Amino acid sequence: MSVVTLIGSGQMASALSFPLIENGHEVRLVGSPLDGDIIDRLRQDRYHINLKRTLHDGIRYYKIEDLNESLQDADLVVCGVSSFGVDWFADEILPVLDEDIPVLSVTKGMLNEEDGSLVTYPEYWERKLQTGSKLGIYAIGGPCTARDLSDHDQSFVGFCGRNLEKLKWIRSLFETDYYVISLTEDVVGLESAVALKNGYALGTALAIGMAEKLGDDGVDHNNSEAALFQQSVKEMMELLKIVGGRPENIMFAAGDLNVTVAAGRSRTVGLLLGKGYPIEAVMEELKGQTLEAVVIATRTAEAVKALAKRGIVNVEDYPLLMHVDGLLNHGEKLNIPWKKFQKIM
Amino acid sequence: MSVVTLIGSGQMASALSFPLIENGHEVRLVGSPLDGDIIDRLRQDRYHINLKRTLHDGIRYYKIEDLNESLQDADLVVCGVSSFGVDWFADEILPVLDEDIPVLSVTKGMLNEEDGSLVTYPEYWERKLQTGSKLGIYAIGGPCTARDLSDHDQSFVGFCGRNLEKLKWIRSLFETDYYVISLTEDVVGLESAVALKNGYALGTALAIGMAEKLGDDGVDHNNSEAALFQQSVKEMMELLKIVGGRPENIMFAAGDLNVTVAAGRSRTVGLLLGKGYPIEAVMEELKGQTLEAVVIATRTAEAVKALAKRGIVNVEDYPLLMHVDGLLNHGEKLNIPWKKFQKIM
Repeated sequence: MSVVTLIGSGQMASALSFPLIENGHEVRLVGSPLDGDIIDRLRQDRYHINLKRTLHDGIRYYKIEDLNESLQDADLVVCGVSSFGVDWFADEILPVLDEDIPVLSVTKGMLNEEDGSLVTYPEYWERKLQTGSKLGIYAIGGPCTARDLSDHDQSFVGFCGRNLEKLKWIRSLFETDYYVISLTEDVVGLESAVALKNGYALGTALAIGMAEKLGDDGVDHNNSEAALFQQSVKEMMELLKIVGGRPENIMFAAGDLNVTVAAGRSRTVGLLLGKGYPIEAVMEELKGQTLEAVVIATRTAEAVKALAKRGIVNVEDYPLLMHVDGLLNHGEKLNIPWKKFQKIM
Repeated sequence: MSVVTLIGSGQMASALSFPLIENGHEVRLVGSPLDGDIIDRLRQDRYHINLKRTLHDGIRYYKIEDLNESLQDADLVVCGVSSFGVDWFADEILPVLDEDIPVLSVTKGMLNEEDGSLVTYPEYWERKLQTGSKLGIYAIGGPCTARDLSDHDQSFVGFCGRNLEKLKWIRSLFETDYYVISLTEDVVGLESAVALKNGYALGTALAIGMAEKLGDDGVDHNNSEAALFQQSVKEMMELLKIVGGRPENIMFAAGDLNVTVAAGRSRTVGLLLGKGYPIEAVMEELKGQTLEAVVIATRTAEAVKALAKRGIVNVEDYPLLMHVDGLLNHGEKLNIPWKKFQKIM
């Protein structure tokens, strides 16, 4: 039995308690400063108000004031914050962690730098560590909604990190019949793949919104959704190359794109934009929710534009990303540049 | 204005008449020996009994006896037979074609040889040509249902062939606002990608059937579908490598997988198998329909097994394909080998 401390009690970290508890581990769930209501209700009757599922018996709940207690004798720390908590985790949590205890992150996303570099969160955190720190940072990527995982629907994800032996041990804590896990040392590849898909899920869902707006016109509109899905995979393949990820990681990008277009907030943002709502109205409609797709699409577009200025890429190779950026940030009206998808490959 | 003769009046060839006619070309639609009823009805009121759409005015309809007349002054010949008509097209049609007139094929599929080689149809036909023939064979791949194309839903496909200038001219005949086309000289890559996806659409749809069998259990089951989608992309990437196609073609494989899992007969076969029906019952249920997925999954599995015998691949890298083959051809019961998806990448 191992002791696993999950920091951030959002949907995905909380869902991970299912395989952990069922594998016989001690699970400690720590609310972030924003998670007070979640922890209060969990303590009451184990019901997670956002996940909308009742967690297993036996989990210990902590508020952030009791972080030190939650970390005592922990064998693994899981970072379960949203991408808006990345700096909080870097500044408040990383410095107090024992560098011999590995960290596994479920946070998906990337940061962009002025020169056009895209930086995955594990890389970002590694940079923030004190010189000489041995802290090992690992991460989860791949198609997995928290609710389906909680419901024991079959899930297939990837864990990444620089130490394969440690990764195998981490996998052993989580692996169950319904939660299977491939391993890769290509952190940049896996993490970039699953970050990028949020922006492209928004892009692909535009077709769903456009179809809904047309109403029951007797047309299936499968082609238009597939056209955007296909263009998304193309642009993600190019981006994987740019960041230095291996092309094999496109499996995670495509798998995660599939699940995110089917369900989730990135889909909702794209769908509403596809119906013709301006971004301001979409943001108003979804107020209070973390919209990772908006962040990552914007950052990726900024990176591409910066790289284009340096002559490293051509923005013409990213017509879908550029249009999504236009919709989100530059007041463009919905007008998917289909003709620009045409390339000589 | 060009003259385009489409041989085989199935759904996809007939749907291609929409962009052609709208671009002002003369369209001649020739029924194969099995298409008599289709042509009879089209002549009557332009209604296509399988496509279930009314074609544009102005198309000329031919039965196969009038093939020579249909080919007179043609600028392009389109091969629209199903994969079961590949040999008929090779034996009966290719020999009578003028070798200066290019052929564009919409037939998706591959053949397997005893040594494990997979051969795309354009390659197969090229081999069948008389020595010294200059006949150029081009092909269409990518996500496009015939009905959505007929309904002018936005579609995005690829055309391939060994002569880029000729390809550009062919594209110019078809290209419209709603039908956009990338070009590639990588015939093996594009044609393999879109052939493979039929077998994998069957494999991915197993999850849909499994979910339907469970009924309304309050679970979304998006994870399990995405898990199979992801594993499909992984195995298709490996197979693309084996046949010598460029990895970029995974965009067409993934895009086409997306549309085929959403609609089509490959989905239906997988869905019924996923519900637990044995293959005999599925075949009985779908009697009379061309089931490309069964053919291509079987051929691909045979090829992988033959290559494994020669030490070139490891069947363990294709657990989904092997299980689909087991369901189709070896009396296996549904039992998706999830644990075998776990790899160190």
